[in-house]
Amino acid sequence: MNLNVEIQEVVRRLLDVPANYKVIFLAGGGLGEFAAVPLNLISRTGTADYVVTGAWSAKAAKEAKKYGKVNLVLPPTDRYVDIPDQSTWNLDPNASYVHICTNETIHGVEFDFIPDTKGVPLVADMSSNIMSKKVDVSKFGVIYAGAQKNIGTSGVALVIVREDLLNQALPICPSLLDWTANFKANSIQNTPPMFAIYIMGRVLQWIERQGGLDEMASRATKKASLIYNIIEESNGFYYAPVAKNVRSKMNIPFRIGSPGNEALEKEFLKGAEALGLIQLKGHRDVGGIRASTYNAVTLEEVEALADYMKDFYKKHAN
Amino acid sequence: MNLNVEIQEVVRRLLDVPANYKVIFLAGGGLGEFAAVPLNLISRTGTADYVVTGAWSAKAAKEAKKYGKVNLVLPPTDRYVDIPDQSTWNLDPNASYVHICTNETIHGVEFDFIPDTKGVPLVADMSSNIMSKKVDVSKFGVIYAGAQKNIGTSGVALVIVREDLLNQALPICPSLLDWTANFKANSIQNTPPMFAIYIMGRVLQWIERQGGLDEMASRATKKASLIYNIIEESNGFYYAPVAKNVRSKMNIPFRIGSPGNEALEKEFLKGAEALGLIQLKGHRDVGGIRASTYNAVTLEEVEALADYMKDFYKKHAN
Repeated sequence: MNLNVEIQEVVRRLLDVPANYKVIFLAGGGLGEFAAVPLNLISRTGTADYVVTGAWSAKAAKEAKKYGKVNLVLPPTDRYVDIPDQSTWNLDPNASYVHICTNETIHGVEFDFIPDTKGVPLVADMSSNIMSKKVDVSKFGVIYAGAQKNIGTSGVALVIVREDLLNQALPICPSLLDWTANFKANSIQNTPPMFAIYIMGRVLQWIERQGGLDEMASRATKKASLIYNIIEESNGFYYAPVAKNVRSKMNIPFRIGSPGNEALEKEFLKGAEALGLIQLKGHRDVGGIRASTYNAVTLEEVEALADYMKDFYKKHAN
Repeated sequence: MNLNVEIQEVVRRLLDVPANYKVIFLAGGGLGEFAAVPLNLISRTGTADYVVTGAWSAKAAKEAKKYGKVNLVLPPTDRYVDIPDQSTWNLDPNASYVHICTNETIHGVEFDFIPDTKGVPLVADMSSNIMSKKVDVSKFGVIYAGAQKNIGTSGVALVIVREDLLNQALPICPSLLDWTANFKANSIQNTPPMFAIYIMGRVLQWIERQGGLDEMASRATKKASLIYNIIEESNGFYYAPVAKNVRSKMNIPFRIGSPGNEALEKEFLKGAEALGLIQLKGHRDVGGIRASTYNAVTLEEVEALADYMKDFYKKHAN
């Protein structure tokens, strides 16, 4: 109980959460919240806007269809490499909320702006870039994040919700996913995933000691730039498909050549593994290579990858 | 992935799970399953039978009402001290399933028999007595248990489900709670609560090393008898409200006198705490004292309580 409140306070300090927002912890991670968002919010008008910029927001939109009408704000695509200009967005003024995923781990697309939703509550899945930079919480109706990328281990989701958005869950909302019931019980409606919450608290305290979100942002920029610069300076040997302004600072997907040379990519991955650079294989949906540079990844580790990329380039480019 | 399968195998060995049952792990514990049970099972007929024998099965029935018709098999009461004879049960032959809670932690009522549900699938919440004795799994359609009582830490539920009961989830079932989707993904539909699953595996392996469920059952009987015998031999100084045949071997609620002498109970709890015997206060719904004797509680610890109870009796009985 005390620990729970203490960790809520760290979240508040780090993100400068305004007083009219509640901080709650729920079992189940991001997938649970894909259902919790419509279950808690769609009742107002029965319809919701989804901005699909990659695999995770697509999955969120699919889950939401179980509970109401889903309006896709962007034209459907299976090649997520940019975020179309807001002037082209098909926003529904009657939507209960607008859902975005601020960083797509598989496709490497990260919002570099906060959309203007004309007063409709903005709901953001920040599972993969929360606490990697400062965020103006007051611009959002709800922010949620599975903990296991940037702030802890799996089994818990952090939810930050504006007070006036509580008390409108659908009657079919499972108690487990009911934000209002969870808030009223101070996140201990049931036995909470205490170990995951504890670890999240320890990670958040570590972020505070490191210098907070400005320091995390500075490190993220340094780490990501290192890799993107090598790609840019490789004369097309390395190829990053995502538009420059929305390139993710957390997940850097790239190919060797365009279209990707799979044999060379395989060799790259094998050589990397021999150096202890693991988990670099791109998601099967996009192929190629993906470097993740979450808070827990050090600059030294990214430098080791950068050096390897330079060596590999020298050896194979001609 | 491998770890997940390995832990499924330990569950299968310990409970001798027949081949036509699936073992899955879900985030969210017992509360999540209170919703998951109707979401996954009630579609067949739209109605379900609930046998309410304490606070937890009452909570499960309440959650199920969100998803269909709930038939209460027993007359409503707020004093749970026995399980009426099956011949008096109001079972609905049209029910999609019959739900029981095999052990009620607050009221200390434990089933000493497996109900005959005339072919209707029997669903059992075994959160608080799973792995405390052998169980004939083939008599059940579904067995589920939050891990944090007898088999691990909070954040995960174990679900054992008969194959033919899959593939009938309501369309509004959140993916997180969808047994079929979870089974198909081998419990890794999303990033699972890995730490909680790992701990569950370690605890189950410990149970195996100790001698399995026969040994757990023998210990449970020894521990519970020690306390119940003192109560019985106290000439009414201690009072256990639950009928003898359904007294729980996991949770022993008792009063000092009947009705309970609250001042003396307070003194009892204070003296216990001074000896390191903690968490003995009864749930606020029933008052008095409650001794929990889960698998993790040793015989020596229960003996310490027994000695204290005898001393307290000598000092205060007259």
